[in-house]
Amino acid sequence: MEFAGSHMLSVDQLERGDVERIFAVADRLEPYARRRRRTRVLEGAILGAMFFEPSTRTRVSFGSAFNLLGGEVRETTGFEQSAIAKGESLYDTARVLSGYSDVIAMRHPTAGAVAEFAAASRVPVINGGDGSNEHPSQALLDLYTIGRELAGRGRSIDRLRIAMVGDLRYGRTVHSLCKLLCLFDRVQVVLVSPSELRMPEAIVEDLRAAGHEVVESDALEASIAHVDIVYSTRIQEERFQSQAEADLYRGRFRLNQSIYTRHCEPNTVIMHPLPRDSRDNARELDDDLNDNPNLAIFRQTDNGLTVRMALFALILDVVDQVEEHATTVNWYVGGRTS
Amino acid sequence: MEFAGSHMLSVDQLERGDVERIFAVADRLEPYARRRRRTRVLEGAILGAMFFEPSTRTRVSFGSAFNLLGGEVRETTGFEQSAIAKGESLYDTARVLSGYSDVIAMRHPTAGAVAEFAAASRVPVINGGDGSNEHPSQALLDLYTIGRELAGRGRSIDRLRIAMVGDLRYGRTVHSLCKLLCLFDRVQVVLVSPSELRMPEAIVEDLRAAGHEVVESDALEASIAHVDIVYSTRIQEERFQSQAEADLYRGRFRLNQSIYTRHCEPNTVIMHPLPRDSRDNARELDDDLNDNPNLAIFRQTDNGLTVRMALFALILDVVDQVEEHATTVNWYVGGRTS
Amino acid sequence: MEFAGSHMLSVDQLERGDVERIFAVADRLEPYARRRRRTRVLEGAILGAMFFEPSTRTRVSFGSAFNLLGGEVRETTGFEQSAIAKGESLYDTARVLSGYSDVIAMRHPTAGAVAEFAAASRVPVINGGDGSNEHPSQALLDLYTIGRELAGRGRSIDRLRIAMVGDLRYGRTVHSLCKLLCLFDRVQVVLVSPSELRMPEAIVEDLRAAGHEVVESDALEASIAHVDIVYSTRIQEERFQSQAEADLYRGRFRLNQSIYTRHCEPNTVIMHPLPRDSRDNARELDDDLNDNPNLAIFRQTDNGLTVRMALFALILDVVDQVEEHATTVNWYVGGRTS
Repeated sequence: MEFAGSHMLSVDQLERGDVERIFAVADRLEPYARRRRRTRVLEGAILGAMFFEPSTRTRVSFGSAFNLLGGEVRETTGFEQSAIAKGESLYDTARVLSGYSDVIAMRHPTAGAVAEFAAASRVPVINGGDGSNEHPSQALLDLYTIGRELAGRGRSIDRLRIAMVGDLRYGRTVHSLCKLLCLFDRVQVVLVSPSELRMPEAIVEDLRAAGHEVVESDALEASIAHVDIVYSTRIQEERFQSQAEADLYRGRFRLNQSIYTRHCEPNTVIMHPLPRDSRDNARELDDDLNDNPNLAIFRQTDNGLTVRMALFALILDVVDQVEEHATTVNWYVGGRTS
Repeated sequence: MEFAGSHMLSVDQLERGDVERIFAVADRLEPYARRRRRTRVLEGAILGAMFFEPSTRTRVSFGSAFNLLGGEVRETTGFEQSAIAKGESLYDTARVLSGYSDVIAMRHPTAGAVAEFAAASRVPVINGGDGSNEHPSQALLDLYTIGRELAGRGRSIDRLRIAMVGDLRYGRTVHSLCKLLCLFDRVQVVLVSPSELRMPEAIVEDLRAAGHEVVESDALEASIAHVDIVYSTRIQEERFQSQAEADLYRGRFRLNQSIYTRHCEPNTVIMHPLPRDSRDNARELDDDLNDNPNLAIFRQTDNGLTVRMALFALILDVVDQVEEHATTVNWYVGGRTS
Repeated sequence: MEFAGSHMLSVDQLERGDVERIFAVADRLEPYARRRRRTRVLEGAILGAMFFEPSTRTRVSFGSAFNLLGGEVRETTGFEQSAIAKGESLYDTARVLSGYSDVIAMRHPTAGAVAEFAAASRVPVINGGDGSNEHPSQALLDLYTIGRELAGRGRSIDRLRIAMVGDLRYGRTVHSLCKLLCLFDRVQVVLVSPSELRMPEAIVEDLRAAGHEVVESDALEASIAHVDIVYSTRIQEERFQSQAEADLYRGRFRLNQSIYTRHCEPNTVIMHPLPRDSRDNARELDDDLNDNPNLAIFRQTDNGLTVRMALFALILDVVDQVEEHATTVNWYVGGRTS
């Protein structure tokens, strides 16, 4: 796709070359994200972070990514606006708000609302999550993380072996990640879920149509024995008919250091879209994994910053100007690396 | 008036020369608002956007206007502050908050609160709306839009023919606009409203005292036949004694493309302070007007950015420094023009 | 202490030399805080203002302080984040959010939460208030104000005579201030409170162990006769068993101009952590003190800006670079001095 001036609404817009282009730009921007350098390439540009549903981490991640390129951020954090309550159309909201910024990152509780907004917007719009539908920058940061983790292990996204664990039915994260995996070659996917929460058949068919090997299971330990990545997701209690059933599955899909050591190959990477639950008996990933260097969950959020910088740089067409606006960082950054 | 260091609380502060000065500065700043150029003239300055009542679009418009001049924005979006709940006076709030910024844009639900705040503030304050009272930057952007739309048609604010339609009793927008029109010559004003919602007599008298011609009516179609501008406003259901009466008037004041074509002169400009209602049977301006090039409602909000930039530049006394801090825009701005 | 890269969680971290270092840096930064100069020393740096409890003035003060050094601010204003509601640990929140900024200022309703967050953070954290526990930048700005006010009177923090008035039991402000006073010499402290709201015994003992003279009283007028500073605090009604008792004490501890003139030495300084109550019969400091030049309450909040700038400059290790990134202020600042 041509990135300059385009919306980024869905992973369906992307071909393999587009994904590789985004990742190549992210690699170039990594020194800026990690504070080894800084750039003012977007000085004077304005991001409208229009979050019509609260999401501190995604909102701050988009905003910080824009700041790291030198730009300013104007934002909103919820349906605070009486105008919307008064029955204004998304068309009008988009026409007005798109006059105030150079690019918009938008979250909305309703599936399809971001695309409807984008159709009326006069500036490019990045979907920051629209209900159960899409959250493309999350899928991209997940795949970017997979690529980087595997590169350090002499492997690649092609021929990836990945187990996805948990609620595969409602999790938009794993759906979008599967769509992106269809752009690559010979992936082995193990889908581990309660039977009520299996991956939608259409996505399984897409994976197989892409030539990938798909296995479905409801048992964690055997499923994670021969994979490069364990991608864990939250299982929400309310998905089950009874508390007893919910407790049964939670216990069965909980990963801790002991299970990891006994069942996984050495250096198997652990991922999660976050937040993970920290309440007793509701954990997907135990705290005793926090010292495991293969726990990549915070490298994922760090990579989110880099990937979002790449999207902004591509969409606003400043990739080749980043270095000429670069200077060194002159303040304390000692403890920053993750 | 002397703008440097002054508050902007009410259109009553302004003489004709002041309005023309603001508009001349807005014209000079337009290339910066539209991204043909950028300037860093206020780099390091801080706007305090103190919105004690939510209003996404006005808050973001002020903030973006300040960013477009190179400044930073600190803001609040509601009565989040326990201090106010604890009974702090506006005097104290103003003394404290005015120490944190170089200029303040403030919205407050109570009429007169912004003036009370400004009296204690140590920096200039711009009224961003205080209840039913004033919203001077809205009146200025409306008049600025009228001037620009008419200039393209070989006409001017002097000798303007305008129809104001809807709730003329409670709408602070039309009240302030009438006050500004009193500064100009030989305006013809047609006031179209339900009898319960007529323009306050004092304002009608002001218009007549200024030498303007005023006609009152409760019929839309005849009233818009010979005007340059149709300025439509929202009629709120709760203003009427019965739903039946509300429905009657809503239907009667609704403008759509068919009525426009049959009754208006060619190129009659359509304006609205927004938001317009998008619910069936509650529309003031139908969606089928969206393709009408004379629908100026989004040019109004765009002009709001420019007018607010002009107010900041005048009050902070940097008008003559804008160009020397200017550079070119180096990112994608393709689809931005409205 | 070594400031570069350190957290600032509690006044207990500070020795006398540390306090003097902070104040010396604040003195150097004062021209920038007061708009006589500006600096871009932190251009490109990002502050994460993570306020998980609303506090407009503290949040804006931290944000403006960072802007005044040239940096950007990303922030949140409450528990808007569904992630926390879903049971995420502070450890995870800290790991994620600390990847998005160079330094964090955090407020949290729970005592100890900021320290727990800081332990997992990858960047320095400044405590902006954690429940009843600590608010070190408030204590520092109070002591800095005392030092500046006294310097103009030929006196100093050593040998200070101070009356603390009001709720001394629950007020974290006076507790932290007492801890800092223990670092200085021969202070005379008069503690004026209802018997139910006396200063905790441990703090009184600390003051005496530091060689200070402590007198406790429940009568205002005699207690303020021979002091340099009257530090007044709010008494909350709900602390008392009956309304009658609350009214009794409120009346007894209320300071106004008449009492000041009759009982205080000339030029006795009046301080208060703010907000002060403006409701009739609930005032600690009457409005008729507003014209008294010894009322230092707004100089306190102004000094808060300067002290927070100093903390940022020390923690991010840019103190010696401030001047080389300095320029002159080019906009209107006429009425700014307090």
